[in-house]
Amino acid sequence: MKTFNIAPINNTLKTKLQHKIDSKTKPLGALGSLEDMALQIGCVQNILSPSLTLPSIVVFAGDHGIAKKGEVNPFPQEVTAQMVLNFANKGAAINVFCKTNDLNLIVVDAGVNYDFTNIKGIVDAKIDLGTQNYQKQPAMTIQQCENAVAKGADIINQLHNKGCNTVGFGEMGISNTSSATLIMSYILNIPITECVGAGTGLNPDGIHKKMEILKAVQSKYQIQNSLEALRTFGGYEMAMLCGAILQAAENKMLILVDGFIVTASLLIAHTIDKKVLDYCIFAHTSGEQGHQKMLDYLNVKPLLNIGLRLGEGTGAALAVPLLKASVNFLNEMASFQSAAVSNS
Amino acid sequence: MKTFNIAPINNTLKTKLQHKIDSKTKPLGALGSLEDMALQIGCVQNILSPSLTLPSIVVFAGDHGIAKKGEVNPFPQEVTAQMVLNFANKGAAINVFCKTNDLNLIVVDAGVNYDFTNIKGIVDAKIDLGTQNYQKQPAMTIQQCENAVAKGADIINQLHNKGCNTVGFGEMGISNTSSATLIMSYILNIPITECVGAGTGLNPDGIHKKMEILKAVQSKYQIQNSLEALRTFGGYEMAMLCGAILQAAENKMLILVDGFIVTASLLIAHTIDKKVLDYCIFAHTSGEQGHQKMLDYLNVKPLLNIGLRLGEGTGAALAVPLLKASVNFLNEMASFQSAAVSNS
Repeated sequence: MKTFNIAPINNTLKTKLQHKIDSKTKPLGALGSLEDMALQIGCVQNILSPSLTLPSIVVFAGDHGIAKKGEVNPFPQEVTAQMVLNFANKGAAINVFCKTNDLNLIVVDAGVNYDFTNIKGIVDAKIDLGTQNYQKQPAMTIQQCENAVAKGADIINQLHNKGCNTVGFGEMGISNTSSATLIMSYILNIPITECVGAGTGLNPDGIHKKMEILKAVQSKYQIQNSLEALRTFGGYEMAMLCGAILQAAENKMLILVDGFIVTASLLIAHTIDKKVLDYCIFAHTSGEQGHQKMLDYLNVKPLLNIGLRLGEGTGAALAVPLLKASVNFLNEMASFQSAAVSNS
Repeated sequence: MKTFNIAPINNTLKTKLQHKIDSKTKPLGALGSLEDMALQIGCVQNILSPSLTLPSIVVFAGDHGIAKKGEVNPFPQEVTAQMVLNFANKGAAINVFCKTNDLNLIVVDAGVNYDFTNIKGIVDAKIDLGTQNYQKQPAMTIQQCENAVAKGADIINQLHNKGCNTVGFGEMGISNTSSATLIMSYILNIPITECVGAGTGLNPDGIHKKMEILKAVQSKYQIQNSLEALRTFGGYEMAMLCGAILQAAENKMLILVDGFIVTASLLIAHTIDKKVLDYCIFAHTSGEQGHQKMLDYLNVKPLLNIGLRLGEGTGAALAVPLLKASVNFLNEMASFQSAAVSNS
């Protein structure tokens, strides 16, 4: 397994950054979360005038063995590949939001059950044509899981080399709310019934069935650690997310965390190195019910709470203007002194 | 008093708009509030492919007689004029956020206690050099209040004539949280103690003193209607906001409501014509504690809740990218059919 060397956040400039924030022409603390974020971004970048360079969204897509039976997912497995083609054709929500907010979008085939040869706009990192069905055997072999983690890290290093210091993560994979639910249940050590949700649109009967299936899956395995949970229940896209998140933290990049699936992948990364959180900004609270519990477990408060439950990194993309506003107020606002505004 | 002729929202296209939203390549409802907003914007503009043209923030500034004594405000009255000069010099938070989000910014002198002659970038709509102190007499005469409402409407008509169909409102005025508190207490019919907050930064002793002063002010008057509340307790900036909001609704423009002061001004407009709400999008929940109660009274849920309590229209400016994303997904996302994605 690839190892990661994540430095704790550098607090050298924290006092100076706070002073700079407090000297701006506004009441103390009046910009709320934007002030917290300015402080965090300044510390992550260890500079008094931080910047967001080549802000990007990376979407990892993968298929899941369990999806073939259609018992836990309202959409068929084929939709994963269809949506990846939709990303390549710029027709999906994440395409629109990246264009709206001027973001670089990278779509990665982590292991979709489809041959994308000769399709432009998709990064090939395919591990296999989907995972195995964890109702019968672990979703991945140890080697597949480690390869996926390493490939996720590679993709982030390439992006970092191109000048990106801010990356939001997204995913696509029919049935991956089930994977996230199983991983969440293991890491938070709470019952499946408290984790399961409607995914992309199950009705109450469907949710009940999903719950029973996932409880049966859970009882089949004796998981020893979080990486084993990842390889047993996860998807290739989630293993790549885990590696990508850890590598981004090692590279001191800002990490924008999207919804339920990305946060589940972060939960794994967090068990490997808790310092990863220093680099994370949480974009939104998903409409998928388990997400709030994950956020509470990590003790974090996201920027947006507007009922999104789409994935693809859409929440991350929508939150970027708030990061820009945060950096820009720190760099561009006048101080009480420079604007000759009375500060008492 | 100028009258306004506000049409109810046009629901002719509602079914077609909902169908268009539901045909996009995403699970039903998965874009949460962005879907509600797309539907609202489509209905307001009565078109299946709406657009935001010349999106603008209008900031009205005015001074308050009570501020001179410094009993309810941690900053001195002079800060209103200093901040208006800061707006003109592009140094304030609202300048930065308008630049970040590509918004047209208009700063209006509604009645600041300062002569801005020969200062560029400030629209002159001055009613007087600040209001009277309502501890002694009503803040405005009937004529002043009516003039302010009419001038607010005029400014919106000029903006509308330039092609603007989306306007966010902001304000600046030392002590205007006190005005908003008194107006809120009257309209919601709840005690001052449930409305008063820290404003720009009072400590608990300061809040207590502010509360006692505002209770004494309240007991001095027998207010008969909301316009009388506006002229007795309000500021010129709030009367202009009231007129501007009503005119924007008459013009079928989208109205972005900012925080505590703007919402208090909307409360007055809402007593004049409840249909104004059809045109409103609520940008954020302010850190000023009374704001949530106003929002509950109006039964609305804002887009952002990130602890902002600055005013100036900053919350409105920060919410605009979400409006853009809403309109853009409606116009640019592929449908299940066009993208050949399975929808079951």
